[in-house]
Amino acid sequence: MNAHDLEARIAAAMQAVASGAAPTWQPPLVSDAKTLARMIDHTLLKPDAVEEQVRVLCTEGQEYEFASVCVHATWVPLCVQLLAGSDVMVCSVVGFPMGATLPAVKAYEVEQVAALGAQEVDMVMNVGRLRDGDYALVLRDIQAVVDAAHDNGLGAKVILETALLTDAEKIAACVICQAAGADFVKTATGFNGGGATVEDIALMRRVVGNKIGVKAAGGVRSAADALAMIAAGANRIGTSGGVKIVQEMAGVKLPEVVVGDY
Amino acid sequence: MNAHDLEARIAAAMQAVASGAAPTWQPPLVSDAKTLARMIDHTLLKPDAVEEQVRVLCTEGQEYEFASVCVHATWVPLCVQLLAGSDVMVCSVVGFPMGATLPAVKAYEVEQVAALGAQEVDMVMNVGRLRDGDYALVLRDIQAVVDAAHDNGLGAKVILETALLTDAEKIAACVICQAAGADFVKTATGFNGGGATVEDIALMRRVVGNKIGVKAAGGVRSAADALAMIAAGANRIGTSGGVKIVQEMAGVKLPEVVVGDY
Repeated sequence: MNAHDLEARIAAAMQAVASGAAPTWQPPLVSDAKTLARMIDHTLLKPDAVEEQVRVLCTEGQEYEFASVCVHATWVPLCVQLLAGSDVMVCSVVGFPMGATLPAVKAYEVEQVAALGAQEVDMVMNVGRLRDGDYALVLRDIQAVVDAAHDNGLGAKVILETALLTDAEKIAACVICQAAGADFVKTATGFNGGGATVEDIALMRRVVGNKIGVKAAGGVRSAADALAMIAAGANRIGTSGGVKIVQEMAGVKLPEVVVGDY
Repeated sequence: MNAHDLEARIAAAMQAVASGAAPTWQPPLVSDAKTLARMIDHTLLKPDAVEEQVRVLCTEGQEYEFASVCVHATWVPLCVQLLAGSDVMVCSVVGFPMGATLPAVKAYEVEQVAALGAQEVDMVMNVGRLRDGDYALVLRDIQAVVDAAHDNGLGAKVILETALLTDAEKIAACVICQAAGADFVKTATGFNGGGATVEDIALMRRVVGNKIGVKAAGGVRSAADALAMIAAGANRIGTSGGVKIVQEMAGVKLPEVVVGDY
């Protein structure tokens, strides 16, 4: 896509948001813990995490049937081994959490984790370049990762780091992610301040429409948080609190109608 | 170096520290602002930094004659262009600030920034693997970066992220960095809590001796901070407050003996 077309798409998206047109997204029905768990990326990204913590993460991943475990590249081989034969994907972060390395380095990181068996990558966008309005570079950066991911059969999510952006920048970022063929736009790394908000999720969903995913990450700590994000437009949740969230969800008893007890 | 030799060296270093043998390092004499400036890596690593901020960084780099400007890879070409013909080096961070990606990815990042003209790299060690005692992997990781750097004529510093480590882990890390041929050991990224302390600098200098450098980074904000780090064993300072520090240093007037004013 050339720069002119990209600018035009961004302008159209800004206008569509400003017009307040009704969104067409229908949030998925999440009425039980298992359904919620299948939308959660069970995440451990502390730089000082040790092997035992990663093993626990994978055990929990299988027990609760999360969508994925989300880890740093160094842990991908262990997670792939531990989760072999399960439905839990292994997701690796890329260019994390700064997003300010080179497109070639991010793409190489994708190829390396793909070769080790990862099934998804969560990359960080080049935030500074987006703020500079250098959309061509931001597109090239995301495209490099998405292409490397798709060439190897991986899904690609793009972290915008929403807390560092204005609404106009968030809209531009979503349009660029879509143009690059990303599978998800994602709010935050959780390491640069701020996190997911229902307002940001609603804005992102409004811009990307129904064709790609929206992942809420950063500060999602309770079942209520997760359900609010889903109601606003998220279809994936990234959190280190997945076990607590699913247990809370399982503990929510719907009021029962007791027959005959008038 | 095989695992047994590495373990033996680490054990010897632990014993040497425990024995309290007098260190042989003589701190450099820093009595003027210019000398101090030449020891400072003028640093801008915020993920949302924009081009104008990087341009200012380079202008200040030349004006104050700092040792280097330290930036993310995405800004290396601009800094190389702006600092061409000056004595100010361009330093890029690698695997920053998590250190938990693959050795091959870190080495590739070094090659890429080298090709763009960077003269130094500051890599982050794999902290989790060190805490696991997986010294062979930590050595391989650092060695990959040091070799890629030296093959391309770059200096290589290794960030330990001291706030996440015990003293025993700091000692082990320093020995591994030395075994890998690193040019500097460095305290902290500034992004994972904690920062440089005089105690850590003294410990690191004691372990690495006089042959390699020690860089204090993370929370160094005043001339007094910088001088304390240098007195403790640092010979490079990483800070985003370099201009303030150098101005403070220039403002320190030594008491003058006014002849004839008895």
